Amino acid sequence: MGASDLQDLLTRACDAVRPEVGIGRVADYIPALASVEPGKFGAAVVTIDGKTATYGDAGEAFSIQSISKVFSLALALNAVDMRVWDRVGREPSGSPFNSIVQLETERGIPRNPFINAGAIVICDLLLQHFAEAPGAAGRAVESSKHELLTFIRRLADDSSIRMDADVAASEIETSHRNASLAHFMHAFGNLHRPVAEVLDVYCHQCAIAMSCTQLARAGLFLANHGRDPLSGAVVVGAERARRINALMMLCGHYDASGEFAFRAGIPGKSGVGGGILAIVPNKAAIAVWSPCLNRNGNSHAGTAAMTAIANSAGWQAL
Amino acid sequence: MGASDLQDLLTRACDAVRPEVGIGRVADYIPALASVEPGKFGAAVVTIDGKTATYGDAGEAFSIQSISKVFSLALALNAVDMRVWDRVGREPSGSPFNSIVQLETERGIPRNPFINAGAIVICDLLLQHFAEAPGAAGRAVESSKHELLTFIRRLADDSSIRMDADVAASEIETSHRNASLAHFMHAFGNLHRPVAEVLDVYCHQCAIAMSCTQLARAGLFLANHGRDPLSGAVVVGAERARRINALMMLCGHYDASGEFAFRAGIPGKSGVGGGILAIVPNKAAIAVWSPCLNRNGNSHAGTAAMTAIANSAGWQAL
Amino acid sequence: MGASDLQDLLTRACDAVRPEVGIGRVADYIPALASVEPGKFGAAVVTIDGKTATYGDAGEAFSIQSISKVFSLALALNAVDMRVWDRVGREPSGSPFNSIVQLETERGIPRNPFINAGAIVICDLLLQHFAEAPGAAGRAVESSKHELLTFIRRLADDSSIRMDADVAASEIETSHRNASLAHFMHAFGNLHRPVAEVLDVYCHQCAIAMSCTQLARAGLFLANHGRDPLSGAVVVGAERARRINALMMLCGHYDASGEFAFRAGIPGKSGVGGGILAIVPNKAAIAVWSPCLNRNGNSHAGTAAMTAIANSAGWQAL
Amino acid sequence: MGASDLQDLLTRACDAVRPEVGIGRVADYIPALASVEPGKFGAAVVTIDGKTATYGDAGEAFSIQSISKVFSLALALNAVDMRVWDRVGREPSGSPFNSIVQLETERGIPRNPFINAGAIVICDLLLQHFAEAPGAAGRAVESSKHELLTFIRRLADDSSIRMDADVAASEIETSHRNASLAHFMHAFGNLHRPVAEVLDVYCHQCAIAMSCTQLARAGLFLANHGRDPLSGAVVVGAERARRINALMMLCGHYDASGEFAFRAGIPGKSGVGGGILAIVPNKAAIAVWSPCLNRNGNSHAGTAAMTAIANSAGWQAL
Repeated sequence: MGASDLQDLLTRACDAVRPEVGIGRVADYIPALASVEPGKFGAAVVTIDGKTATYGDAGEAFSIQSISKVFSLALALNAVDMRVWDRVGREPSGSPFNSIVQLETERGIPRNPFINAGAIVICDLLLQHFAEAPGAAGRAVESSKHELLTFIRRLADDSSIRMDADVAASEIETSHRNASLAHFMHAFGNLHRPVAEVLDVYCHQCAIAMSCTQLARAGLFLANHGRDPLSGAVVVGAERARRINALMMLCGHYDASGEFAFRAGIPGKSGVGGGILAIVPNKAAIAVWSPCLNRNGNSHAGTAAMTAIANSAGWQAL
Repeated sequence: MGASDLQDLLTRACDAVRPEVGIGRVADYIPALASVEPGKFGAAVVTIDGKTATYGDAGEAFSIQSISKVFSLALALNAVDMRVWDRVGREPSGSPFNSIVQLETERGIPRNPFINAGAIVICDLLLQHFAEAPGAAGRAVESSKHELLTFIRRLADDSSIRMDADVAASEIETSHRNASLAHFMHAFGNLHRPVAEVLDVYCHQCAIAMSCTQLARAGLFLANHGRDPLSGAVVVGAERARRINALMMLCGHYDASGEFAFRAGIPGKSGVGGGILAIVPNKAAIAVWSPCLNRNGNSHAGTAAMTAIANSAGWQAL
Repeated sequence: MGASDLQDLLTRACDAVRPEVGIGRVADYIPALASVEPGKFGAAVVTIDGKTATYGDAGEAFSIQSISKVFSLALALNAVDMRVWDRVGREPSGSPFNSIVQLETERGIPRNPFINAGAIVICDLLLQHFAEAPGAAGRAVESSKHELLTFIRRLADDSSIRMDADVAASEIETSHRNASLAHFMHAFGNLHRPVAEVLDVYCHQCAIAMSCTQLARAGLFLANHGRDPLSGAVVVGAERARRINALMMLCGHYDASGEFAFRAGIPGKSGVGGGILAIVPNKAAIAVWSPCLNRNGNSHAGTAAMTAIANSAGWQAL
Repeated sequence: MGASDLQDLLTRACDAVRPEVGIGRVADYIPALASVEPGKFGAAVVTIDGKTATYGDAGEAFSIQSISKVFSLALALNAVDMRVWDRVGREPSGSPFNSIVQLETERGIPRNPFINAGAIVICDLLLQHFAEAPGAAGRAVESSKHELLTFIRRLADDSSIRMDADVAASEIETSHRNASLAHFMHAFGNLHRPVAEVLDVYCHQCAIAMSCTQLARAGLFLANHGRDPLSGAVVVGAERARRINALMMLCGHYDASGEFAFRAGIPGKSGVGGGILAIVPNKAAIAVWSPCLNRNGNSHAGTAAMTAIANSAGWQAL
């Protein structure tokens, strides 16, 4: 498919779902998210042979929120390897994103790294790892945030990406539910750094702002067996890339992961900012953004757009 | 029953269960509790006509822990009346004392004031109440602790009773599970004061140290329709006293409340320090102490002693 | 209290709550219950010294439904003694009457004999017991029903009491939820007779029809340490009577047992037919009937009447 | 890849995992399964261009059990189309295969068609459908079994495939857990035919006996966009095939679906007979059989074999 065919495909698919934009509700638990304009709608595709197509607000940065969990997981796996799986599972949860029930019956081990509890454990692992670095005493929080941001900037090939300090501050202030999850896991011995440190890193991670174009570019290595096809850099090994994709497929949309797999048929990870990153193995990475969410907390129009793009391109993985 | 008959009865009942002392495990989640001598065993009975009988270590102060929840509930009911029941239920939980599962399905409303989550809400209510007092700005934590301690000292007619600062400090440090419960309820809007303040009051409340003799004396008003029979002071109204007794009967031993009612047949409240306070309506209050706990977190020998005392005196309520 | 004082007390208490009659909903899962007139309202008190007072529809038979579980438990305890407690617990459930959740986590052992699952196990125990009687081969179902009915007729001193065949047939036909509970326990090895037999006995037990007067009379032994004060017969031992009362107090109103204890302050057992039997230790047995139920499945006006009677007589146990 | 290369690949992969054969436990809930020889190990691959490779006991028929759920789902979708999804979800359960907990909280709607409750609903749908056929009155059970068997025989191009009557009879006799699920859903209105009929069809479906070779052949249409590549027949539409694959990927191994996706990286469905069917989109279908199960109820050596085959062929979907 040539570059203009790709652009045509993206344009047609997005035009078709545009009537869905505005259906659902913008996340309103913090002011910085609640004030986002509900009519925003962007999409970007980057193929492994370097073609890019964009649509609408593809160039505007938004809060990637839980999509960041894909990148922090990749960073943690590179840092501590399979030891990640001693502390977090890799099964779908069958529960909403912030449920605490399963943590009690499964003694503080979260079901997977893409629900909140699991991502909080990943932050704790990063903090432990960076706290052990020579000369890092007392700087683990800053190191963790810095390393994660650097990792994402390198993946997106764009050093302008930043963590939104206002969003992070708001998140920290209102994160009673996440604090509850963190303390709960601490009580079971599955958190090692102070809760305040872990939530600091977690909330800053969620507050990373990226555009669709940056996001699709940053995810491209997962479509290419772990190697960034444009820079040539090996980000993660091929088996690790495949496994991250499998986790996205099974757990990437909380308790609507089955629905996304059923419709779009590709691995994806959503965020309450209204973004979705999806991976088409051997072909492309796709990012969409539309802030209004369905009742499972996933972008309504974004899900529709991702389905339309994957279907019209014949890009399903299964 | 004369004073010497009462003493004989208590001595015989306690002698009979003495072989049970040492069975079970001392609570070990904080050093101050873990270091208590497992062989301690005391009991005291105070009757509404002023007779007292004691046994063994009845005069030695121990950490009353959750038994304090009876007194903080009485204080909160006097302070804010039936509004307590907007924020906490009055049903048995069917779950361990620190379970969080029901809080999720019941949207942050704890089942009753005697499980941890419920007692934490009671502390929040006291903090709110004392924060509103004239000139109390910034002193709500100290006022809450002070008022509760004053209330208990008055009930026990003993101004030497104190909060054990070491125990309180240890509790605060290790209270991740309670912090989790508190943040969880905060996320549902059922906690209004800062979590750190609430846990400060809660952990100091649990750290109150009393002897069996003091404890039985302090609970005597509940055996006498809410009026302290020795001082004549009305502590709570008759209906309120009866209702507190009903709550102790149904919820006073966590998920072994049925077992205690089945065996001892009277309302009681246990604590992980190994103490139990029980009420014999129209007759007496009984306190026992033996630090080794059964798997439900209640004193093993204490439960046996309470059963033996109630049975040999023919004091069951039902 | 003289007989006419007792009648005055009952009349005044019931008159006061009469405006509550008709609030709530009549059970409608079977036609025979759905067709009961919502305005029915009866009450009866029988004291241990033989005085009786009645009110309204006290002489009209209604479907006692779950109140029968008190009698089947007493019969089973007499038949197999403490072995009952190997197969059913004695703790409040913290769940609705027909919940199956706890059965899964607690491997087929119901929480107490007054929720449906527990009463089904009691029927299985009775079936096992009567199947072992000499010459009983093939007649266990008929023997179980016959023995239970005989037991209740003897307690009520009234041989006209019967099982309503229409109600029983309707119950069997619509009892998918109970069949589910029974099969579930069978899968865990906690049911031994065929499910169809157990449900046959269970549904006939629930279909027993009694009037308030008969019901209060039948429960009188529980107010008198297990001995029928009028006939002089020992029905159960004193400790057993006290323990059955404790179970009624903690578990007699499903997930509103705390509420009933909080308000009425005495042990009671409700049924979806709108009846309640309550026990005043050392004093009396009370039965009320009003078919409209609150959302917990307990008689709305019946609960109010029971509270009014106990309060005005000063009959609370605690 | 030529036919001999394919055979070499399969042989090497299976030889490598042979030491895993015998680890775990053979399903023992019915005699017919318990008596299977634990050392059995077979595998078959059929590619969409018609090449077949086999290993070990590939030609021996075994009880396919839950693998049958893939075929009954396809048949039901063809029969009643998207109405299937009114009665069963398409999300992973986060629970064991026979859990009833989620059915209570989600009011009788099973999470997906591959857990027992979901497959039971599918049987009910088939029964309803075939009961409505002209002249089918009273023959719905036989029609349902016959149509399902005919469908599978056609897919496998082998009319010798049969339902094992002994296995079916044993399953029906011991299926208290499934009866519990069925009655529970009936109580919620999500089962329409009599429970005995539904379990009859369900147990016969599970009792279908097939060899690895037959099974891989029968699943081939799912690797080829719904069209049987060898016969040319369209079994289901392309989108439907993709969606069935998505469901297998997310829910095909009960509460170890994440683990299988993480390791093998392809959609698969397991059965307690020790079989697994997996689909490699655009390439092949693979069946393995080894009766010893891991603690999640999936074939231990079978999972290892499937992982080895997929990895050595580079056949992962993601």
